[in-house]
Amino acid sequence: MKEIGFIGLGRMGGNLALHAVDEGFSVVGKARSRKPELEEMGVRVVGDYPSFVKGLHPPRVVYLSLPAGPTIDQVLEELVPYLKDGDVVMDGGNSLYLDSIRREETLRRSGIYFLDCGTSGGTGGARHGACFMVGGRREGIAVAEPVLKALAVEEGYVHTGVPGSGHYVKMIHNAVEYGMMQAIAEGFDLLANGSLKGLNLRDVAHVWNHGSIVASFLMAMAEKALEKDPALAALQPFVDDSGEGRWAVKEALDHSVPFVANAYALNSRFASRDKDSMAHRMLAALRKEFGEHPVKKK
Amino acid sequence: MKEIGFIGLGRMGGNLALHAVDEGFSVVGKARSRKPELEEMGVRVVGDYPSFVKGLHPPRVVYLSLPAGPTIDQVLEELVPYLKDGDVVMDGGNSLYLDSIRREETLRRSGIYFLDCGTSGGTGGARHGACFMVGGRREGIAVAEPVLKALAVEEGYVHTGVPGSGHYVKMIHNAVEYGMMQAIAEGFDLLANGSLKGLNLRDVAHVWNHGSIVASFLMAMAEKALEKDPALAALQPFVDDSGEGRWAVKEALDHSVPFVANAYALNSRFASRDKDSMAHRMLAALRKEFGEHPVKKK
Repeated sequence: MKEIGFIGLGRMGGNLALHAVDEGFSVVGKARSRKPELEEMGVRVVGDYPSFVKGLHPPRVVYLSLPAGPTIDQVLEELVPYLKDGDVVMDGGNSLYLDSIRREETLRRSGIYFLDCGTSGGTGGARHGACFMVGGRREGIAVAEPVLKALAVEEGYVHTGVPGSGHYVKMIHNAVEYGMMQAIAEGFDLLANGSLKGLNLRDVAHVWNHGSIVASFLMAMAEKALEKDPALAALQPFVDDSGEGRWAVKEALDHSVPFVANAYALNSRFASRDKDSMAHRMLAALRKEFGEHPVKKK
Repeated sequence: MKEIGFIGLGRMGGNLALHAVDEGFSVVGKARSRKPELEEMGVRVVGDYPSFVKGLHPPRVVYLSLPAGPTIDQVLEELVPYLKDGDVVMDGGNSLYLDSIRREETLRRSGIYFLDCGTSGGTGGARHGACFMVGGRREGIAVAEPVLKALAVEEGYVHTGVPGSGHYVKMIHNAVEYGMMQAIAEGFDLLANGSLKGLNLRDVAHVWNHGSIVASFLMAMAEKALEKDPALAALQPFVDDSGEGRWAVKEALDHSVPFVANAYALNSRFASRDKDSMAHRMLAALRKEFGEHPVKKK
């Protein structure tokens, strides 16, 4: 019987759960609130761990779609007592790979297989075919693999190796993503603010997505954004980040691996949030001090 | 009658000519040497301009596939006397957009339409479906458009606007390409040299091409390279560049557009070629001078 359980039914978990329903799975979801839009489409939503675990036959496959950090440890602590030897828990979030190695060791002692399941493709991928890079022991992989293959796009699943390696590869994936985004973003900045005025940015993104060397999922997203708002005029130039990029930059530092473009992409996001940059005030002050260059006062 | 003439039958021009044959075009090519492999497949190859022009009916569509720089001016000077009012010459190479603006003005005085035809997609694209971003006057575009659409992938053609805009957009395309390549390259460096040893880089590239956010033409090329040589062990870490990236960086400087990741990608290539870096020798010398830090002598 094809079954899967989801803990966390947010944008990613909810869409993966619907995808699993489409693929013919019996799907149980654990969430803190009711999810009528998911229940209508066939996801059985429960509010407590005993019902969640009871709704699945061993060996169970449980996918966590939760924010990285202590939430994962807390949920594992509450969930594991109800699980049985040979059940599989996958962390589909963006956890630090070192946490995943630690969690795998802990769960293994209880006879539970823990897989670190780096998940990419955004919410659209979750709904219609995701990309999974999964670390963990072969025995756990063997149980989860049919589920992962069903939820992935064709060929969009790989067992990366030892526990932690899935989240490790996903961490680097996200750093590469930041760098690629920055390259694209700078290109559109120059298209918008260079010598030639009035270029149709949406048309450029469109043609770049058809047969060019820069054709990519991200360029398709750029085209989509420009279709809605041709100069992105409605957006503030403020860019957040969600952690994995920083870990990758630190990892590169630890191993003396030059990681300049991807680290800069992260730093560019930091700068985007700082509307009263101390560095820029200091630069202005230094120019004033040594050269009497004019400054702009508040 | 569907006709096109190519001047320059190298890797790009030769493949485009074969593609045109496949699309049912009568194809004449001008080259300095015989091209038996193209002639066998239906390209009529001639060695002089009078025969080349005689082989095409007006209004002619001529595609130049030549190195950027003075070669283009020289070829135009030799070719144009044989052309007729209303003929179209497209420069499909990576010419500086300012040169294209100048050439368009010159040819217009002779009644010839000049289009700057930024061409992407590599040799595979040339053979099976390219991407064209084309600047120039509407009258010339109207003549060339059916040819360009036939040689492009579906939707892989756009009229970018005024003369010069095609090569301008292509110049920025190439700078974005450099930045994206750098982001990908740094990611694989960290995968190869970080904490987790023995990751299968080819598998990672493969899964990243199936449903992930970093899926792209360039990631597909990375996968292809890693398939042939899993650690790229046969290659020297030496990276060339072909000009457009530099122009884009200069253009960004001229307009005070921050262009850090893409400029760094170019600089990283410069560094890759310098096995006896003066900067690195100076850094070592400075550390020695102020802190007695050891240096490595030649």
